[in-house]
Amino acid sequence: MRPFRYYLRVRYSECDAQKVVFNGRYGEYVDLAVTEYMRAIGLTSGGLFVEFDYQLVKQTIEWRAPARFDDVFEISVQAKHLRTTSFTILVEFRIAGNESLTTTVETVYVNVDPKSLAKQPLPESTRNALTRGAPEVQIDHAGYLTPGQKRN
Amino acid sequence: MRPFRYYLRVRYSECDAQKVVFNGRYGEYVDLAVTEYMRAIGLTSGGLFVEFDYQLVKQTIEWRAPARFDDVFEISVQAKHLRTTSFTILVEFRIAGNESLTTTVETVYVNVDPKSLAKQPLPESTRNALTRGAPEVQIDHAGYLTPGQKRN
Amino acid sequence: MRPFRYYLRVRYSECDAQKVVFNGRYGEYVDLAVTEYMRAIGLTSGGLFVEFDYQLVKQTIEWRAPARFDDVFEISVQAKHLRTTSFTILVEFRIAGNESLTTTVETVYVNVDPKSLAKQPLPESTRNALTRGAPEVQIDHAGYLTPGQKRN
Amino acid sequence: MRPFRYYLRVRYSECDAQKVVFNGRYGEYVDLAVTEYMRAIGLTSGGLFVEFDYQLVKQTIEWRAPARFDDVFEISVQAKHLRTTSFTILVEFRIAGNESLTTTVETVYVNVDPKSLAKQPLPESTRNALTRGAPEVQIDHAGYLTPGQKRN
Repeated sequence: MRPFRYYLRVRYSECDAQKVVFNGRYGEYVDLAVTEYMRAIGLTSGGLFVEFDYQLVKQTIEWRAPARFDDVFEISVQAKHLRTTSFTILVEFRIAGNESLTTTVETVYVNVDPKSLAKQPLPESTRNALTRGAPEVQIDHAGYLTPGQKRN
Repeated sequence: MRPFRYYLRVRYSECDAQKVVFNGRYGEYVDLAVTEYMRAIGLTSGGLFVEFDYQLVKQTIEWRAPARFDDVFEISVQAKHLRTTSFTILVEFRIAGNESLTTTVETVYVNVDPKSLAKQPLPESTRNALTRGAPEVQIDHAGYLTPGQKRN
Repeated sequence: MRPFRYYLRVRYSECDAQKVVFNGRYGEYVDLAVTEYMRAIGLTSGGLFVEFDYQLVKQTIEWRAPARFDDVFEISVQAKHLRTTSFTILVEFRIAGNESLTTTVETVYVNVDPKSLAKQPLPESTRNALTRGAPEVQIDHAGYLTPGQKRN
Repeated sequence: MRPFRYYLRVRYSECDAQKVVFNGRYGEYVDLAVTEYMRAIGLTSGGLFVEFDYQLVKQTIEWRAPARFDDVFEISVQAKHLRTTSFTILVEFRIAGNESLTTTVETVYVNVDPKSLAKQPLPESTRNALTRGAPEVQIDHAGYLTPGQKRN
């Protein structure tokens, strides 16, 4: 089964003078894709976390090919390496319709108490949701006109 | 008939510490909506202009109400005040599903020669396309999963 | 006397594929320059307002010439049109060392209660500070290495 | 000797609803700091490379502590791991005046032919400049008012 996928169209203002997506934009794209993934697996409501919060610990980005203005990214998202207090999200970028990867990003998150921001073990329900993921689910950026894309 | 409309979901990174869309983001939203409008009326291909180019001369933004993370904007776009070398685009922001305006933006563009950047009269075909607009057309930001949203 | 001036170097990521500052960036530049102006006239501490808060009502940007990567902007800031609950800030952009304006921005702000966000009259001390301004004061963006640029 | 350092003040619009610098902003900060480093070691003029060009291959960001609006970052930059066609730049973030690191970023760049974008060996002069670095050099973001900060 194919992992969760999110579709995003590259904005003109996200490209630099070399006419490719500026490298510093990928972190924001990951944030967008992970937000939709977290919603799809049931951990957020209105885009915000209900029972837990997380912080970024480490992010590794590898670029293989550039993307350009007006390209639509197909961004797949899946969890891996679930540990006691942390987990890793693998995000893979392709130009929609193509098989070859343009960029991959691995991000390590740590689960924190929403108030004290102290590390805490992942709740069982969160662990299960991340393990399950949202295979075959596809989400469009706005998705207002896409059948079945109303979001919580 | 309702004017051309574009749908965009507010990103987390576009909101500031007051938890509303940062005022400096509206210029980028206008650029996105006008890009799709120009494509819908047939003046661009791959998001880029075919026969003409324009520059921004003046932009007036009026804010009436804030927008927040995860809101979907319905952004309507229409041309007005077509003059010899310039035209005005009126962009109106609503939270999708609501009638009340949150923000309105008027932008004056001048038609320039793509090479010399000198002002030049609007071609007749451009003038006709702007006058006609794209009433009843609705476009989603990525639109990859929306029936009929393949774009030139 | 020359009005308050703020210096900012254009970032590579702020330019677009036409190799000029993207139009949607000017709102952010105005926010930066006004933040430093408000500090210079004594209305903020740590960049945050002490006794009052404001919201943007209207902003009008006029572009006369482009700016490019690595240009240093000299941005002058002064208040005008102080009314009962609102005031206007005039922000003028020049390439540092040049006399000619590249961009001018007028922004109308309304004074609001920090909690209820209801309009309220400008306090007398705020009115006086805006009237006085900070003539001849010059501030560098970071200013960490500039003599006398420690900020409250 | 202390490595090259660059100073940058955090913008309001760079912080998110949690009132800390948005994670996706660090890539842009690295780009800014590396731009100034490359200028300081003599590889650029007007911020642009003279004899060579590079592409990002991999970037690893580790966050230890957050930063907030109006903080001044002290960002140190130094090269390591010079190989035949690639090199690594280590960028370390501190709040200016503090010893403890908030964020570290390692970026692997590959030297490419400016026209064909094919990998090519680092020229000897580039290799020497990266090895030498710019120890004890300190640069302010705009630096227009800082003695001795005129830049090529």
